Parts: sequence; structure tokens; C-alpha cells
Amino acid sequence: MAYDPAEAPYAPFGLPKLGLRNYWNPILLSRQLRRKPQAVRMLGEDIALYRDGGKLFAIEDRCPHRGVKLSVGHCLYPGTGTITCPYHGWTLDGASGALVAALMDGPGAPIVGKVRAKTYPVREHAGLIWVFVGDIDPVPLEDDLSPFMADQKTFFTISAHVDYKANWRALVDSWPNDHHAPFAHRNSPELLFQPILPFAMTTVTSPLPDDKGITYEGKNGIAGADFPGLGRFPNRHWWRFMKPTGRGKVTGYQNSKAFKVYGIPNRLQLRLPGTVIIGRQSGEYCLIQWATPIDEHTTRCFNINSFRRLGFWREFYDRAHYYVWRRWVHDLLFSGQDKVITEALVPGPERLSRSDTGVIAWRKYAGKHARRPQNNATNTATRQIGSA
Amino acid sequence: MAYDPAEAPYAPFGLPKLGLRNYWNPILLSRQLRRKPQAVRMLGEDIALYRDGGKLFAIEDRCPHRGVKLSVGHCLYPGTGTITCPYHGWTLDGASGALVAALMDGPGAPIVGKVRAKTYPVREHAGLIWVFVGDIDPVPLEDDLSPFMADQKTFFTISAHVDYKANWRALVDSWPNDHHAPFAHRNSPELLFQPILPFAMTTVTSPLPDDKGITYEGKNGIAGADFPGLGRFPNRHWWRFMKPTGRGKVTGYQNSKAFKVYGIPNRLQLRLPGTVIIGRQSGEYCLIQWATPIDEHTTRCFNINSFRRLGFWREFYDRAHYYVWRRWVHDLLFSGQDKVITEALVPGPERLSRSDTGVIAWRKYAGKHARRPQNNATNTATRQIGSA
Amino acid sequence: MAYDPAEAPYAPFGLPKLGLRNYWNPILLSRQLRRKPQAVRMLGEDIALYRDGGKLFAIEDRCPHRGVKLSVGHCLYPGTGTITCPYHGWTLDGASGALVAALMDGPGAPIVGKVRAKTYPVREHAGLIWVFVGDIDPVPLEDDLSPFMADQKTFFTISAHVDYKANWRALVDSWPNDHHAPFAHRNSPELLFQPILPFAMTTVTSPLPDDKGITYEGKNGIAGADFPGLGRFPNRHWWRFMKPTGRGKVTGYQNSKAFKVYGIPNRLQLRLPGTVIIGRQSGEYCLIQWATPIDEHTTRCFNINSFRRLGFWREFYDRAHYYVWRRWVHDLLFSGQDKVITEALVPGPERLSRSDTGVIAWRKYAGKHARRPQNNATNTATRQIGSA
Repeated sequence: MAYDPAEAPYAPFGLPKLGLRNYWNPILLSRQLRRKPQAVRMLGEDIALYRDGGKLFAIEDRCPHRGVKLSVGHCLYPGTGTITCPYHGWTLDGASGALVAALMDGPGAPIVGKVRAKTYPVREHAGLIWVFVGDIDPVPLEDDLSPFMADQKTFFTISAHVDYKANWRALVDSWPNDHHAPFAHRNSPELLFQPILPFAMTTVTSPLPDDKGITYEGKNGIAGADFPGLGRFPNRHWWRFMKPTGRGKVTGYQNSKAFKVYGIPNRLQLRLPGTVIIGRQSGEYCLIQWATPIDEHTTRCFNINSFRRLGFWREFYDRAHYYVWRRWVHDLLFSGQDKVITEALVPGPERLSRSDTGVIAWRKYAGKHARRPQNNATNTATRQIGSA
Repeated sequence: MAYDPAEAPYAPFGLPKLGLRNYWNPILLSRQLRRKPQAVRMLGEDIALYRDGGKLFAIEDRCPHRGVKLSVGHCLYPGTGTITCPYHGWTLDGASGALVAALMDGPGAPIVGKVRAKTYPVREHAGLIWVFVGDIDPVPLEDDLSPFMADQKTFFTISAHVDYKANWRALVDSWPNDHHAPFAHRNSPELLFQPILPFAMTTVTSPLPDDKGITYEGKNGIAGADFPGLGRFPNRHWWRFMKPTGRGKVTGYQNSKAFKVYGIPNRLQLRLPGTVIIGRQSGEYCLIQWATPIDEHTTRCFNINSFRRLGFWREFYDRAHYYVWRRWVHDLLFSGQDKVITEALVPGPERLSRSDTGVIAWRKYAGKHARRPQNNATNTATRQIGSA
Repeated sequence: MAYDPAEAPYAPFGLPKLGLRNYWNPILLSRQLRRKPQAVRMLGEDIALYRDGGKLFAIEDRCPHRGVKLSVGHCLYPGTGTITCPYHGWTLDGASGALVAALMDGPGAPIVGKVRAKTYPVREHAGLIWVFVGDIDPVPLEDDLSPFMADQKTFFTISAHVDYKANWRALVDSWPNDHHAPFAHRNSPELLFQPILPFAMTTVTSPLPDDKGITYEGKNGIAGADFPGLGRFPNRHWWRFMKPTGRGKVTGYQNSKAFKVYGIPNRLQLRLPGTVIIGRQSGEYCLIQWATPIDEHTTRCFNINSFRRLGFWREFYDRAHYYVWRRWVHDLLFSGQDKVITEALVPGPERLSRSDTGVIAWRKYAGKHARRPQNNATNTATRQIGSA
């Protein structure tokens, strides 16, 4: 195969450009799918999503008859779970994909039952629509979720998403303590009045107990330094008068309420297939970001804000605070800085350094532990990493 | 050659993606070509069209000198039938393509007479501009027209066109009684108040007497049926109170005025190179649709409304009725439904069924009977169909 | 290598589609580069340009760390000549390209000094920013400039540029007396009231004394002629009442002030890497056009108006005259005619004629004399021309 500069950083680890298959990924907010079928693309596959009779269905977006997109059709027989192609009325069962009727052929058409479109496992959970794109039987959705999302009795979530013109791997690479936050986000409104996040840390990573990702921690960080020939970083700004708060409070996690009261063993998690949990010392909120691959050049970045349920008035406050402050300051402005950077990435060889310890750990972990069809995949991945 | 999913349904029949060559196709309405030369693309070829001295000319849209588009130039010497390149004034005869003068080389330049651009046979007829793109001497235009267009003493026409982002074959495939009309157009304003067109018919096709296409007829159609597990199609709608009229009147053609008085032997014709005639039982109107291939992904769909000349007041009424009603209801809305569907077509393998009898008959007929240069083409086509 | 119609006219001469390397080319007006780094593309290479501490820097527009465009970053340490990547704060010296600090790694990071980005020689001269893209040590900027630009004590310049959607070679081809001016520009406001430029000339070319281009002259031109079967060219227009002036005054250069007083040996020069000088008989003004290749399909055309310094009031007049008249009439309208034509060029074989003598001379000269790395290039070029 020809050398592809865009693949150079990932090929040795077996991380495919269209995303890791055999996982659940979110693709829409629940409220974005109403009565009309909708076309989505995930991991390079075109899928028609629709609701009928209180259920969700996901079917390949191409009628097996003459190839028209099913998402252009509609649910002609509500309550039956079928979708009907707009061209000749082929009616397919959204669960099995089986052809239930070829309307224009009349009842009892011989082709009925002999044709099947591909369908996808689909779920609705935590205000999001999840689809399993892969080559194996789907795992339970909960297998791919952290407790902060899986357990909706203890937590509630508010989500938003934006499409990045970047490959999913570039986005995920920016999460595992690659030290870009102290630099790239130093002037974001969220962090503007506090000291910048510590940098030049030693990054320590270890596998999560549930074997679905890694946790990472930065140790021995510094808050500023003199660089010979340049000057100080950061320039001392008088307006950084606040104490570290929220995301900024990164040291002393062992003494935090999150750890002591709620028993959350670590603040930061990077999980398969490509999602990050950025916790707080309060243990009462965490930000989850999720990179759903659309196609080679596009990624849907979800910001999933997970709040601990602490009674009516606290929930009221949390929701109000989100819509008034956090939605703009983080989900738009802070994430917007990442968007500018990942979209300005030019494929090619890298020169990794100390700050990339977390990135390397993630790539290795993900390539080795990604869920794959039983027989051959793990071997391949292991071999590839061995030779990297 | 590599397997191309977009070609899979057509390759066995020898139907090329850029269109059938050696036919006349319409490309513009007469009124769309005025004094300025115009660039058009047909069957993938770029052509400069212009009028001069009451004549029409079609020449390849590239000056043989240094390659500038002739359509950017103009007719510098009106009445001579020439077009002059905007770059150095090479002046070419639109009929023969011969270089008549290289202005900047002065009179008597040695290159004059030694260079020739490709020209295309071009005609104006029935309010349309027709071009013959092919590799043989052009046939008379009338050879490619049905009487409804050829005989402008008996008929007059009103035409409109829209470009579809679809291959010409996909558009033509929707014409030969593929049963999409009763389904896809059931709610079009034209058919809304009448019973839906019959479906689940047995399609009978036979070659036209003039050997330039097929006629097709649906027999034993039904107007509704119960589909097990789904329900009735169509849902009974109280507003379908009208008797079948216009396009909807499809049975009993043998007793029609068209057949008995005017002697039109059949209501529906699908003709080479890619045009359909949808007649009426009155015999006083027919709709002709024509798919002119632009390039691989674009087709210009003409709606040519052909009216029998029945005196001044009837013609006045027909024209008024067209502009007030039919133009919107059919040429925009009804055809718009076809546009949405053909543009939503995803290339790939098909699963043809009973309703596609007409499509298969058309593909076979067209592949076998298409006009081709004498020596080799017919053999190839026959062989390809034999092995299909 | 596959036959490429776009290369057919140039391949025999060794003129590459991305431009002649190892030359200085202008890319921006001085005033277009302010404090923010800017992304430019030249000869297909992406370059970040910035100013710091009164100096100019040009560095490849990709951080060697993880590939983000440096032009998205900024000069975090003013006065040090460095640019800092927006992602993790890698700080590179714009002169040497050396990594000076990896901010997020802290001071003393081991990778500092071990990584180097590519930098480009860059200069500011005559109100333009010049970059040397090539594979050898840069020559002095003056080597690539005619005296009209190099000597800013004697001349001052006013420049403008427009991007053409055309290959650089197509633009340069329109300069060496290919006779397109008398035709294509005959109705430009600049020439409208004078006789058209003479045509059907014998073009005489000779190498420039400094061996950096050719001079060309048209002899025995005519001002009009009858073309059999067509008529006269040009049609006599009553409004062409003026005597030839400015660009139009093309005969008798040997008696001109430019030649006699100022000692400018010729009026027209076509110079490497792709620039033309169109002088005047006064010797007090010349137009320089420069084709800077952006990429295969885009060229930045500079109009560099060079005026002889003749005292305060004359300079005042020249500047006023430029902004009121020449800027619109030439740099926009006249050049706009060339833009339309070069953008309408369709790649493919040519049929060159008498009027193309200048074009052929230029292609041969440029292919043979282009500056190339010592060892192999000249031989190749010679061989290619020999076999052409």
C-alpha cells in the first residue's frame, strides 16, 4: 500500500481512519429525531434513522430494489416499525431489514421475504441516540458507557454537538493530557481569571479497572517558568486573581469530595472508542467529550455534561447555570479553540516529545484493546504494535 | 476494468454513462440562444452554440490555436457564419470548422485552411435547439422524432427543462412503466383527486412498428389491496372523488378517440435515445419527456408538451391552460418528485422484481437497437446481451 | 508517465507546472502583512509569513510537532523573531527554523535544538514581500530584478495583484508578443481612442545582455487589412481619433527619449522566472507584470508600475494619475481581459502559427536558461529541448 502521510502516526497502532468499529457511538440528540426519517453518516456508513411506534430504527440508507435513499421515504404504516421507499413503495422492517411488502408488486409478491437490508442496533439513552456500527453482535449499550452516563438515576446529562472538519483521531489525540490545555486554552473565558493549568508535568497513565480505557494524571507540574532567550511563560497577567476552580483545580484529588465521599477513583479517564471524562473535585459534575467519526475528514464532537442528581432545586440551578454560562463558555468557546486547532492540522510525520506521553499511551492502548471480531484482529493489532 | 457499482445495472446491456451517441438531442429552448455564443455540454462534450445570419452553428468549445473557449468569443463578422476566438482572433467557420482567418497573422496567413475544429450538426425545430453528437454522418432530425414533434403542422409544442443531478439512465429507467407513478406521484396535485393509477400490473412490451423504441402497457392492474401486517394501500382518502382523467385514464384505450379517430396505435412509447411519450385518450395532447445527457452526473430533462392544432381559440385555451396550470402542476411539481428520487439514487447492485419488467425490456431494447457505427457496434451489443 | 494534455505544450521545454524553483517571487504587498502571521502558498508550498522586530520571516506552515499550521499561531515573544504554535506552544526561530522552546515541556526540554522546520529566504523591497522557494542557497534578490525594480533610488513603484484561476505558464505565454494585445485589448479603455496596436508583425527576439531573459520586438506590423470573405479588421471606428500614446507608441524606439536620453536598450523584456517589462518611449514609466505560481491551477498576477523619480511634484502627479486612472483602466480592466481569457483556456494540444514566434522563443529560452541546482538540471533541460 502506498505511504499515506495522514496515516503515518496511526498505522503502527492499527487505528483506522473511519473509526473503531463494534462500539456504540452517539450520533444525534434525542430531540433532533422527530417524525421524519433522517439521514446520518457514521464511520463512513450512510444510515437512515427513524422512530415508529415508540421505537427507534436504523437501516442502511439505500433501498435494495433500485438504490434510492430510504431516508427520503417515510413511515407509511405507523406502528409497524417499517419504512417505505419513496420510489416504488418497497417496505422494509426496521428491526430485521426484511422486505415486508413491495407495494407496487401487489400483495403476495414473490420477492417479499427474499430481500434484506442491513440494519443497525440503535438505542436512546441519556438524551442521545446511539448506533452500533460493526461486524459482530452488539454488546449492551452500558458496556460502552461510564457510570456518569449509564446510571441515569444518579446523574442527568445535557448535551451539545459540533461537527469538526478533522479526523476523529486528531480530536481524540488532543484529550489525553497532551498538555495543550494550559497553552491553547489559557485565555478561554473559563480559565481566564485563574492561574493557567500546570504544565511540564510528568504524565502517569494506567489502565482503568474495567479495562476500557486509561486514566492519566499529570505530576510535578509547574505554573510558570523562564525560557532562555524568550522570557517568562505565562506572561504574568494581573487579572489572574482567582484561585483555581472547576477544571482548574487539578491537584490534591486524593483529598477531594469526589474521591472521599463519592468514591470516584480518578478524575480523568480516556475510554474506548474515543471519549474522555474530565471530572471535578466535587464529584458532582463531569464533562464527557465523545468523538463520533462521521467520515475520514469529519468528526462529530459531543459535549455531554453530566450532573449528579441532588434534588429539585440543585438540578434547577445546574440546568440554568448550564444554559446561561457553561454552554457558551465551554461548549462553544473552549471547544471552539480545539476546533480551530484540529481543523488546522496538516497530515504528516510527527516529532513527539515529553508532553505527548499521554497521546502515545492512548494510541497504544486503543490499538491493542479495541474490541474486534474474535479470531484475527487482536493478533494483528499486537503484531503491529510489536513492530512499531 | 475495475468493477464500478454505478455501471453494474447497465454494463451488461452496453448503455454508456455519457449517453447514446449518434442521435439528435435537444439542449436549449430556441429563445435561450440569442446573439451571444453559449457554452453547453452534451454527452460529456463541450460545445459553443451560436446564431449568425439566421443560421445555427455548433462547434467544439476550444480554439485549436491555444485552447481558449470559443464561447467566450463572438461573431465578429456577422453574416459569415464564423466565430472569432477572443485571444488572437482565429476565425472559424461554424459549418465546416475550417480556419477562415488568423486575424493577428494578417491576411494570407499560411495556416489558414490547414486547421479545422470539430463541428456538430445542429437544427432548430419545435422551439428547441437540437444537436447531433456522434461518430457518423447525421441522420435527418425527423428520424429521431415521433410525429408529435416532427409534424409541426398538426401539433404545436411548449417546452421546459430542468437539470437533474443524476445520470441519464436513472431518469429514463423511471419511465417504462416501472410502476413508480402510482406510488411516487400519488399525492401530486395532478392526480390528487382521482383514484391512484393502477398498480401490480402485468407489463406488456412490444417493439414499435418504426423500430425506434418500445410500447408498453400495464394489464390487470389493481386500484388497492390489503397488505398483511401493514394495512391497505392506498389508504382510502375521501378526497379522491374524481373520475380518472388526463394521465389517469389508462384503461380502454381501444375505445378512445385517440385510437379510433386519430389512429394513434398506442398510448405509451419509450423511444431511443431516451425519450418517452405519454399520450391521452383524447389524442389531442401528449407529454414527451426527453433525457439529454450532460455529463456522467447531470441530465437535462425536457418536458415537451405537444398539443394538436385545433384552431385559434382551442390553441389559445391550450396555451393559457398550460401556463396557468400544467406548467406548475406537472412540469414543476410532478417532475420535481422524480427529481428528488433520481437525485437520491445511490449507485450499486439492484434487486429487480415484477414491477421492473418494463425497465428490463427497455435496457435490453436500447442496448441492442441503439444506432451505432456500422461495423463493430451491433455485434458487441448483441454479444453483451447474450452473456447478460 | 501518462500523457497529460495540460503538459503537452510545456513538457518538451522542461517548464514545470508548479513554477520555476530557485527564484525570488513576490507574494504580497508590504502593507498586506501586518502583525498577524499570514498563510500563503507559492509554487505549491504552504508558508507562514510574519514580521517581528522589524524583520520578516517565512517558515513552512506546519509545526514539526503535531502538524498544526503555524500561521494560526502568533508571535508570543515579540522581538525574538520566533513564532509559537497554537497547539502546545512549540516556539520556532523564523530565521533558522530551529525549535527554541517547547513551552509545555518546560525549560530545558531535551527536544529543543533537535528539531528544525524549513525556512525560506524572504525580503521586502519596492513595497513587495519576496520569497525564494528553491533547493539551493538563495541568490541576492537583485539578481532577479530588473533595474526598474532593483534601483529604488531612481524609480518608485506602485503595485497591485489579482489571482487568476490559471496556470502560471498560460499567463506568461500571453506576454511575449504573441499578438493577442492588438486583438484582445483593442477595446480596452486604455487603447480605445487610438489606432489598434500593429499586428501581423515579424517577431524578432534576442537574449538580454544580462542573460536573464529575452527582448522581443515586432517589425513590419500593419494597422489594418482586408480578410477575404470576412471584411476589414479592425472595423474602422470613428472614435479612434488619437495619435498612438503610452503603450500604443511602439515604433521608432531608436529615436525615443528612453533610448537616447536614458539609455534603455529595448522597450520590451521577458525575464525569468516569469515577468515582463513593458516600457514606454519616454523612459519615465514602465509596467512590470509578474506571474507568481500559487499552485497548479492558480497564479498571482502582479502589476508593478515603475515610475522614474523626477522630483516631488512629478511624483505627486504620477501617484495621483495612477490612483485616478491607470489603476482602473489597466490594472483592473485591461488585466481583467487577460484574466477572462487565461481562465477560459482548456488544456490540450496547440496549433502554433506565425503570431506565436515570441511564445516559442520564450518557452525555449526559459526551459534552457532557468536557474537549476548545478549538477544535473541543465543537462536534462538541454536534452529535452534537443529532442523537442
